[in-house]
Amino acid sequence: MKYGHFDDNAKEYVITTPATPLPWINYLGSNDFFSLISNTCGGYSFYKDAKLLRITRYRYNNIPADSNGKYYYINDNGVIWNPGTMPSGTPVDSYECRHGLGYSRFISSKNQLQAELLAFVPTDEACEINCLKLKNNSSEEKHISLFSYVEFCLWNAMDDMTNFQRNLSIGEVEIEGSTVYHKTEYRERRKHYSFFSVNTKVQGIDTSRDSFLGQGQGNALPEAVRNRKARNSVASGWYPIAAHQIELTLQPGEEKEFVFVLGYGENPADDKWEAPGVIKKTDAARILERFNTTEKAMEAFAKLKEYWNTLLERFTVSSGNEHINRMANIWNQYQCMVTFNMSRSASYYESGTGRGMGFRDSCQDLLGFVHLIPERARERILDIAATQFPDGSAYHQYQPLTKQGNMDVGSGFNDDPLWLIAAVAAYLKETGDYSILDEPVRFDCKPGTEVPLLEHLNRSFQFTVTHLGPHDLPLIGRADWNDCLNLNCFSSEPGESFQTTGPSEGPVAESVFIAGMFVKYGREYEEICKRTGHEKEAEEAEKAVKKVYDAVLDAGWDGEWFVRAYDAYSNKVGSSECEEGKIFIEPQGFCVMAGIGLEEGNAEKALDSVQKYLETKYGIMILQPAYTRYYLELGEVSSYPPGYKENAGIFCHNNPWISIAETVLGRGDRAFEVYRKICPSYIEDISEVHRTEPYVYSQMIAGADAPRFGEAKNSWLTGTAAWTFVNLSQALLGIQPGYDGLIVDPCLHGKFGDFSVKRRFRDAEYHIEIHKPDGVQKGVLWIEVDGEKIAGNQIPLIPGKKEYHVTVQMG
Amino acid sequence: MKYGHFDDNAKEYVITTPATPLPWINYLGSNDFFSLISNTCGGYSFYKDAKLLRITRYRYNNIPADSNGKYYYINDNGVIWNPGTMPSGTPVDSYECRHGLGYSRFISSKNQLQAELLAFVPTDEACEINCLKLKNNSSEEKHISLFSYVEFCLWNAMDDMTNFQRNLSIGEVEIEGSTVYHKTEYRERRKHYSFFSVNTKVQGIDTSRDSFLGQGQGNALPEAVRNRKARNSVASGWYPIAAHQIELTLQPGEEKEFVFVLGYGENPADDKWEAPGVIKKTDAARILERFNTTEKAMEAFAKLKEYWNTLLERFTVSSGNEHINRMANIWNQYQCMVTFNMSRSASYYESGTGRGMGFRDSCQDLLGFVHLIPERARERILDIAATQFPDGSAYHQYQPLTKQGNMDVGSGFNDDPLWLIAAVAAYLKETGDYSILDEPVRFDCKPGTEVPLLEHLNRSFQFTVTHLGPHDLPLIGRADWNDCLNLNCFSSEPGESFQTTGPSEGPVAESVFIAGMFVKYGREYEEICKRTGHEKEAEEAEKAVKKVYDAVLDAGWDGEWFVRAYDAYSNKVGSSECEEGKIFIEPQGFCVMAGIGLEEGNAEKALDSVQKYLETKYGIMILQPAYTRYYLELGEVSSYPPGYKENAGIFCHNNPWISIAETVLGRGDRAFEVYRKICPSYIEDISEVHRTEPYVYSQMIAGADAPRFGEAKNSWLTGTAAWTFVNLSQALLGIQPGYDGLIVDPCLHGKFGDFSVKRRFRDAEYHIEIHKPDGVQKGVLWIEVDGEKIAGNQIPLIPGKKEYHVTVQMG
Repeated sequence: MKYGHFDDNAKEYVITTPATPLPWINYLGSNDFFSLISNTCGGYSFYKDAKLLRITRYRYNNIPADSNGKYYYINDNGVIWNPGTMPSGTPVDSYECRHGLGYSRFISSKNQLQAELLAFVPTDEACEINCLKLKNNSSEEKHISLFSYVEFCLWNAMDDMTNFQRNLSIGEVEIEGSTVYHKTEYRERRKHYSFFSVNTKVQGIDTSRDSFLGQGQGNALPEAVRNRKARNSVASGWYPIAAHQIELTLQPGEEKEFVFVLGYGENPADDKWEAPGVIKKTDAARILERFNTTEKAMEAFAKLKEYWNTLLERFTVSSGNEHINRMANIWNQYQCMVTFNMSRSASYYESGTGRGMGFRDSCQDLLGFVHLIPERARERILDIAATQFPDGSAYHQYQPLTKQGNMDVGSGFNDDPLWLIAAVAAYLKETGDYSILDEPVRFDCKPGTEVPLLEHLNRSFQFTVTHLGPHDLPLIGRADWNDCLNLNCFSSEPGESFQTTGPSEGPVAESVFIAGMFVKYGREYEEICKRTGHEKEAEEAEKAVKKVYDAVLDAGWDGEWFVRAYDAYSNKVGSSECEEGKIFIEPQGFCVMAGIGLEEGNAEKALDSVQKYLETKYGIMILQPAYTRYYLELGEVSSYPPGYKENAGIFCHNNPWISIAETVLGRGDRAFEVYRKICPSYIEDISEVHRTEPYVYSQMIAGADAPRFGEAKNSWLTGTAAWTFVNLSQALLGIQPGYDGLIVDPCLHGKFGDFSVKRRFRDAEYHIEIHKPDGVQKGVLWIEVDGEKIAGNQIPLIPGKKEYHVTVQMG
Repeated sequence: MKYGHFDDNAKEYVITTPATPLPWINYLGSNDFFSLISNTCGGYSFYKDAKLLRITRYRYNNIPADSNGKYYYINDNGVIWNPGTMPSGTPVDSYECRHGLGYSRFISSKNQLQAELLAFVPTDEACEINCLKLKNNSSEEKHISLFSYVEFCLWNAMDDMTNFQRNLSIGEVEIEGSTVYHKTEYRERRKHYSFFSVNTKVQGIDTSRDSFLGQGQGNALPEAVRNRKARNSVASGWYPIAAHQIELTLQPGEEKEFVFVLGYGENPADDKWEAPGVIKKTDAARILERFNTTEKAMEAFAKLKEYWNTLLERFTVSSGNEHINRMANIWNQYQCMVTFNMSRSASYYESGTGRGMGFRDSCQDLLGFVHLIPERARERILDIAATQFPDGSAYHQYQPLTKQGNMDVGSGFNDDPLWLIAAVAAYLKETGDYSILDEPVRFDCKPGTEVPLLEHLNRSFQFTVTHLGPHDLPLIGRADWNDCLNLNCFSSEPGESFQTTGPSEGPVAESVFIAGMFVKYGREYEEICKRTGHEKEAEEAEKAVKKVYDAVLDAGWDGEWFVRAYDAYSNKVGSSECEEGKIFIEPQGFCVMAGIGLEEGNAEKALDSVQKYLETKYGIMILQPAYTRYYLELGEVSSYPPGYKENAGIFCHNNPWISIAETVLGRGDRAFEVYRKICPSYIEDISEVHRTEPYVYSQMIAGADAPRFGEAKNSWLTGTAAWTFVNLSQALLGIQPGYDGLIVDPCLHGKFGDFSVKRRFRDAEYHIEIHKPDGVQKGVLWIEVDGEKIAGNQIPLIPGKKEYHVTVQMG
């Protein structure tokens, strides 16, 4: 069942009913000011940091769900409704929500009044613009009372929802003309404010929530809206809001437009007052002047569209498969950019109050956006590396505003260091910018500890070399990529953090997954050493990798698949010897991606076992059989009910690893099948089962053991986006950035036909036509560049050349 | 304007409309299981700790406000309503909510169906009982669908409202007969569960919230209730609830009763399963069997009433003044008990997620409940003292479950140590139990550090002696009683904690308030030393007190009032020299209570200044003039908008200090007037201004500078309760526990007439008749005990004597 459809030309998903299984959201903003917006206009805004500078208030876990946002109420002859239908819930006669790239549009009508609302954040100002157009399609004159409504958050989102004994006394606003300035705590240490305005004279303003809604009432049918009369309240403590009242008359066929702006401003600490108690409004004045007409607002909207078009043009595919086209050209890249902006901080599942930037998360996300914004990827790499410790290990997370490591979520996740190599290698291949390796980067963000980035990579590599366990496999530490595999934790206290309890170093528990990573990224490190003239390091690296490679094929092989780990007692995890959790997905994917056991035959066996034991109609489960009880020695992985999350859920993030691994074996049919099963566009028509947005990936789909098998959770902020884009663009479509040029090596379903790719790479434009005879899954027969055959499948870089026309013949 | 009335005979406050200005709540529970319940049935339950073991989910700051609780829906011929009117909001034909001592009762009717709901927590089981009676007062047969509804919290209330990426996957329940067992995380490290049951066979059960309410819907009109059909859903992740469906037919005049029980059970960690995946239900079985009939439930209710009656009988007054009678005999003592149970953790302003037990708070609260539960007061003192550091200083807070000090809220509040002396002195006077002084008590909860409690008092005393500043006044540290007077903080970062930023020790900033405390409680310490044979310590204490006494009259005197403090630059705070914040209430109250300047005339001047500069019609403000800007050197006190909280609000806690101080001067008229102004019963008729519950004190009433002058906030959990009870019982009514017996020394308004007091003291019953001629404010002419005149006004203790009949003649 579908609740809308893709509009590929407009690059939009069109939702045709407000009654989606869950709120289906979009993200607005690409620099400092961000908003989340659902298909019923729920959501919130923040500046830079969703915890510390939350601009509007949102209530996670509310009932009714998703019931705060930027709302417009229309009172048309006593009938009160909203363009996005919420919060009044009044049924409308027609409804459409179009989520586009950085904007959302709502078109609805009731009693022959049409409302069109466009919400977006301009590329270069800290504000959200809402253009609202009302049109009278009836044959009678209409007198409309229009009310706007936003509820301010008192900045720190966590404090805002806990510290009422203080917060109910501190709310403050200023009102000037049609603008409400929210200035709670500005009188003390803050130098920033937010504001909400409209480009017209208003008939009234409310800034006290209870005055506007009615004492203790919800926001479904505010008292002021029912009475068509704002109370001109001035908030003093309690709950500051901004609500405008606009009275308008529309003749038959007439339409009127308004531009509402919600913005953020700040001042120097020593120059923040215009007069005693009156905030200086420089930023607000500039922003409001810039967008004070519909024309000006639409100019900013055109710039936003241009921004996204330019960005996404860096990689486009044209094939006979609409799913592939739309995911590659629009939604998968778009989701990658959202993970760049948000990391794991703010979604409808991540409350924006806790997790900072993950060391591992951010390195992986980078794989998906490095081709889009290489300069910002460079900056991100340097930020991440600066949170590394001198021994190569790392804080597991760091705070986006301060860029300091955050010990609340611990360290000692022993895969973390290797992800830095993965990110840097991807950056080097994409850009050829070796200068990054010379950048001085701190340890633990401490001034005076700077060493070149290359030395950080060395520490990353050496960390694994110096942390091998009894089987010469890497020690797991607190956990590896699977945060929930806590083999040194032994937590028995309810609520205790699995991520910080127990020692971060254990001398016994080992990870075959990290071994796979080490082989894969150790080789990248070796390559980087070679290319920077560090022959000795390269040789040593090769040896170290060989040793772990051998260990994987020895102690890391279970007979039919790769073992997952050894626990603190040196018992196998993910082995046929185990009662539950006999086979895990991660080592199968990563070891094969690393090329382990290709020649020896283990790789094929491992992937066959994945299909045999882990695959379902909705994707591949992370492990089987599910843990039916809590295992003290395994930690959080066994804490989830069977079928959910890391306990046998379909953890989407690692499904592309299997797909990529299949392409390593050249099994295009399988690789494509694995890709297809969790691909949003492909499963759009089971939205009633899948439930999350059909245009983006979710972190998890409930596995076969779960009562709600097939139901997805935690959409948007997941490494699935980046890894799937790597899979789709590099492994399946086979357009791979290499150190010395673009490599072409597709591996696709036999039935997949010819296709072409346009790609920006090293300041040049590549137009690649790929001829793929029916039945062929992998293999390049020949390649012509501008009419000339080349040797091999790597397109040589020609300095200064701005355009490459490439023809590829598979077979 | 009133929204109800007191029913003194029933010891209840009767609320006659659901539309109170704010939710008016009550507390159920007196040992481990607690519930908050509002006059529209909102609220929540927890076991022991409101943060860690939250049983039902509550959404602070929700809109509609207060919209989760234990709800019963009645579908009577398609009309859906609730006994407490929420959450449907359906208007009823009659409504009454009676908040009593440890129970609340709702009586309402709609379309001639009457519902009576009684909610209470029995004294000796971990559960809440809800007795619901439905009666058909019409002349037609009625077919009723009755639904219950509670929403479970996933135990840790903070995690529950932030960690959705995990929590939406972990919810689990078990259903057996009419009982729903909530067992989220029981499969892993928890060994406790909650349950909700009813003593009848049910027609259906829902445990998935969205199934019951409708996908994404609010709880106003659940789908299942509208359809008269539970969906028999089994929660798997998302939002576990318990909802019963009961179909019943009532003949004209017929009534039916049901007993619902929400309970908590736990098992040994190694014996928590009945069968694989099936929890052991020993506790639940016992509890449900105990309360499975209305009769059994009412037996428990009778025991609860008995418990409260016995408790409150320890102090009763009978006078011609109904306000005094009801506050002294019922509500003030009741509020003191609630502060004993809750400290500052869970109210409608304290979200139960943060603040633990305050060192200072708990010591002060004890002054109000030591006469009620001396054994538990003893235990509390020992818990508090164990969080002291060896140098006498203390953690500002400690966690109730673990009893460990909590460094998140810092230490170095230099008044803290002296409150321990205050608490112990009060305990000794009340009980005569000197053995407590010999109890071995740890420092910083560390085993092996035990010293006798008396030595802790010595460290408390010595802390001040060794922390005097340039004027021989006590150094203030982070702050003193006024947590917001942060003279060593200098915080300029938004959101930074005023309580932990900056050094906890500053060598310059001094507090005159602590000086007053030191004189008052230093003398108590001296007395305790004398009484335990520590003559040398007593002598030294006397000298140390004298030194500070002199310093107060010297550097601590501003000419018309006592200075508040010296800041880190040695500038005066609370002086006519200041631009703002010229006079503060705290040193005036405490210095006079300590007897400073009584003979010298300063005391009278100081209190006159309080009246002149700080008094308003709604009470006495904490300071004047309000700070209009932020002062880096003063901290949080200047962070609030003028008129709120510590910045010139009427901070109720210190109003009784002024009243007591007035009694020290013998000015009964003034003392009474100060008492009257913030006394809930006296201001019941301005409930539309005051807004919080008219039966308990609030922490703060907005001061004259605030736009909402007279509006109260933060009701229930405030030291105002204890200090007012000290004021009322000891200073005004003059019944003072002394080391050697009960002292009688009333000080009241000249117009206050004769009165009698019955008081339990040292295992004896005192019946005290006080004759007070018109116009007399203070002074005892003579006292007769059992017909014999005694010397002075202290009733000598006679060993073994169980009853004292005392007649007192004032004049």
